[in-house]
Amino acid sequence: METKAQVLYDFTAEPGNNELSVREGETITITNQNIGGGWIEAKNSRGEVGLVPEDYIETPLITPDNYKSHIDQTDQHCFSEMATSLSTSNGNDPWAVFDSNASGGFSNNWAAQPEGTETGETSSSAWHSGGHGHPQAYQGPGAEDDEWDEEWDDVKTSGGYAESEAGEGGAINRGGAHGSSMKIALNKVLIAISFYMMRVRIYTVFQGGEAGPVWAYPDYQLDCVVADPKKGTKMYGLKSYIEYQVTPTTTNKPVNHRYKHFDWLYERLLDKYGSAIPIPCLPDKQVTGRFEEEFIKMRMERLQGWMTRMCRHPVVSSSEVFQLFLSYKDEKDWKMGKRKAEKDETVEVMIFSTIEPEGLPDLDLIEVEQKCEQFNRFTRAMDDGVKDLLTIGNEHWKRCTGPLPKEYQRIGKAFQNLSSVFNSSGYEGEATLTDALTAAGKTYEDIAQMVAEQPKKDLHFLMETNNEYKGLLGCFPDTIGVHKAAIEKVKEADKLVATGKITTSEKITMSKRASTMSYALQAEMNHFHSNRIYDYNRVMQQYLEQQGKFYEMIAEKLRHAHSQFTTM
Amino acid sequence: METKAQVLYDFTAEPGNNELSVREGETITITNQNIGGGWIEAKNSRGEVGLVPEDYIETPLITPDNYKSHIDQTDQHCFSEMATSLSTSNGNDPWAVFDSNASGGFSNNWAAQPEGTETGETSSSAWHSGGHGHPQAYQGPGAEDDEWDEEWDDVKTSGGYAESEAGEGGAINRGGAHGSSMKIALNKVLIAISFYMMRVRIYTVFQGGEAGPVWAYPDYQLDCVVADPKKGTKMYGLKSYIEYQVTPTTTNKPVNHRYKHFDWLYERLLDKYGSAIPIPCLPDKQVTGRFEEEFIKMRMERLQGWMTRMCRHPVVSSSEVFQLFLSYKDEKDWKMGKRKAEKDETVEVMIFSTIEPEGLPDLDLIEVEQKCEQFNRFTRAMDDGVKDLLTIGNEHWKRCTGPLPKEYQRIGKAFQNLSSVFNSSGYEGEATLTDALTAAGKTYEDIAQMVAEQPKKDLHFLMETNNEYKGLLGCFPDTIGVHKAAIEKVKEADKLVATGKITTSEKITMSKRASTMSYALQAEMNHFHSNRIYDYNRVMQQYLEQQGKFYEMIAEKLRHAHSQFTTM
Repeated sequence: METKAQVLYDFTAEPGNNELSVREGETITITNQNIGGGWIEAKNSRGEVGLVPEDYIETPLITPDNYKSHIDQTDQHCFSEMATSLSTSNGNDPWAVFDSNASGGFSNNWAAQPEGTETGETSSSAWHSGGHGHPQAYQGPGAEDDEWDEEWDDVKTSGGYAESEAGEGGAINRGGAHGSSMKIALNKVLIAISFYMMRVRIYTVFQGGEAGPVWAYPDYQLDCVVADPKKGTKMYGLKSYIEYQVTPTTTNKPVNHRYKHFDWLYERLLDKYGSAIPIPCLPDKQVTGRFEEEFIKMRMERLQGWMTRMCRHPVVSSSEVFQLFLSYKDEKDWKMGKRKAEKDETVEVMIFSTIEPEGLPDLDLIEVEQKCEQFNRFTRAMDDGVKDLLTIGNEHWKRCTGPLPKEYQRIGKAFQNLSSVFNSSGYEGEATLTDALTAAGKTYEDIAQMVAEQPKKDLHFLMETNNEYKGLLGCFPDTIGVHKAAIEKVKEADKLVATGKITTSEKITMSKRASTMSYALQAEMNHFHSNRIYDYNRVMQQYLEQQGKFYEMIAEKLRHAHSQFTTM
Repeated sequence: METKAQVLYDFTAEPGNNELSVREGETITITNQNIGGGWIEAKNSRGEVGLVPEDYIETPLITPDNYKSHIDQTDQHCFSEMATSLSTSNGNDPWAVFDSNASGGFSNNWAAQPEGTETGETSSSAWHSGGHGHPQAYQGPGAEDDEWDEEWDDVKTSGGYAESEAGEGGAINRGGAHGSSMKIALNKVLIAISFYMMRVRIYTVFQGGEAGPVWAYPDYQLDCVVADPKKGTKMYGLKSYIEYQVTPTTTNKPVNHRYKHFDWLYERLLDKYGSAIPIPCLPDKQVTGRFEEEFIKMRMERLQGWMTRMCRHPVVSSSEVFQLFLSYKDEKDWKMGKRKAEKDETVEVMIFSTIEPEGLPDLDLIEVEQKCEQFNRFTRAMDDGVKDLLTIGNEHWKRCTGPLPKEYQRIGKAFQNLSSVFNSSGYEGEATLTDALTAAGKTYEDIAQMVAEQPKKDLHFLMETNNEYKGLLGCFPDTIGVHKAAIEKVKEADKLVATGKITTSEKITMSKRASTMSYALQAEMNHFHSNRIYDYNRVMQQYLEQQGKFYEMIAEKLRHAHSQFTTM
């Protein structure tokens, strides 16, 4: 059966991939809906047939996700009188909501209708797909059987950190998705602290010396190695993908995962822990690297960084979904685990119901608010500092790979050129100068090359670490926003009691839960600080060591060049 | 007695110097002609009185120089039928005359009337003052009692080699003076090789091994130290000047000389030896240096370089005028020596009459021509190479003192800024990171300063040496031009014999003299090569040593910064 469908967005076919270019508003005929991998086969009005991303066309397909979204939407109406739109957090600057007068803004918007409640924007599927945004040409993690691989199609010609900045657009988009998803998160906060009962208590926070509350850390530090990327093909060679080998230090048994699996894990972790723990974005699809190999290497390196960070987190690393990812047995087990994870209800702010501040006294609202403000100030200031360093590092990278080596090369050429002029003098004993002068010229050409290659050996890691932290810090506005919303709610408690909306006992429970959330935030901040100190110590050591070696090597080269000149 | 006079050129008074601004064409009244130092006191139509440079106004003063110029001019007419204008050598490119088809140009212009013979341009005073050019605000060396000091009035705000390039304008001007003076030199060539008898034979050229003809070098290498610049004033403090102490290694008795004395010496040496020996220009009046001290230091350094080069030359250093300069006894002796030097008739091409190729066979014309072409090619290629290196060095200087240290400083600031953000975390043990991070930041600030200061320690000398060679190489076109002219003349000899202009015996003498000139050129080239090999070996050693130390120092600083981070 042939179905007509309208195209929602422009799509440009990649040559040689059996794809079909389509324009927004165009009507196409679906010729095969069972291609899979997020693709359908379609025919345009000119009779051309090819693959088009499913997401780009409007079809009346009913998926389990759509259904779930519908249910959520209905459910949501029960709490709509307490919802907040918090539209200020939807802009490009995720920090805007925390400007000095932001808490006033919170209160003012507190009782407003949630934006987009009517359109299903608050559904979890909206959360997953990043809201209303232009759907990227890949399927959301909810689509079980999509096999279209985004790894190849998103490789952009780029190089160095200059283009990484361009890639930042992608990161901002993800950040934007965070922003709009805040609407749901904040609605759920109200649910959590107002009505839900805490159920499973798993994650313990306890007083950890001067630092204050800390997570309970496992005795054995989980780690894993991401390595050995392998190219595979599917759909009779139409699509190719890369599988990375992930080997946990616990089992030492490697499992293979594609980028889309990492992405699925990321979405699950974000959904489950995002309110309490900043879950950094995966490396962006448009990462740097002019060539396929470079691109794959860079992505692998960043996936390694991401996995290491997740492994190090006591809450995340011990979670069922993370363990599932690390312990792939067979396809059946994996699919069962995926389904279970996707049905997990202890997600978003519900995560706080699983946290127990062991033997810690309840905090009063002022303390909770102070801690929250302190962390907000810190993460914001660090975000500025990190971005500043990235900007400077980026400029330095450009100089070190561009004009500086070019200049050393020109100096080298000038020496060699002068040497060859001298050689033409016909003067006896000329070689005592020209051999050394040529060698000095070559030395400067060598130095040019060393200078150009050095950033990959040191600046790269400094940039990567700071890029990682930029991503991590970008998650804090959401995490802290959840806390801010809870604080505002508790502030309203007296009024709610007075108007008979809640009981005094419920008010006390709300306050207690805000205290728990604060302990969780403190534990998370301490985790962040401890990791940060480790990471920056490590990366600075690495940077300075490599820089020192680099200058020492240049000095050595120059000493050698010097020794070839003769004093007469 | 008051005299009216017309102003020839605009002159702008320097504030506080008791000077009077005047405009070209303005009529002023001379109120005091006996001021001295190249100045007169004058009153303008508004009744303002002040000092005006003597040169800037048209007065009917008769000086011995004017008289001499008149005589020379008359004398010159005797040889005007053999004169050449050689106007091609008057352009900005002193090498233009040696383009592939230049020798044809020589022949064509050979019999032309000398330009400006009617205007006295060929007089020796025109030579001294640089021809018709706008007289700079200082007196020519012929004016015995001029005491106006150009040292202060020409200090321009400038710094680094960028502005040294601007100063090159001055060097070109001087080059231009050389160019126009070629007219006379080439006239004199004809005189020398056609009619003059060789008289005193002093300078010996002999076969020096494989290198070919060399000058007879003295057993003891003369050298001198230029040091201890002292400010003096005259005209009741109206004018100030700087005296440099010149101490020859032979006598070890210091003599004091002002820049104008060096300039007088330069003009004398150029006049006497310029046809056979390239006499490099003095350091330009507009040398680099933002401050007085820097300017004086730079000039001193360059005067030292110039004096060293003159001392090293066996012909120049043994000359009476050079010895006079180094051995000032008293004012009377000095003035007598000056007068004698200015009356020296063995100048310009006459210098070849004092050269004896000892025990060397006469060269035939083809050999003479080949040698001349070879040296021309070499000096021209070296000139290109040196200018190329100077251009690159100049750009490198700018980068090293501009954007590069700024970038290191920004890196340093970014580290320190991040460190101070970290310090605000309130996390225990933060200091283990922040102290080291602050130190690393300071290290990069130190490196910034080191980078900015380094060019003065190494690139400076490389630039100075190449600048010196640029000046020296700029003299070769004139020197080689004299040889080319002689060769062309000898080529014409047969025709001259046929038309009865010269006898066969005179033709043989001409050929013999061309051979002598060629030996002198070969000796000079060998002197040049030997010095060049020494100078470039020395400067490259110095450059590479300093560069090596610089990078080693940075490496050491980085090692120290590295050691402050702790591995946890």
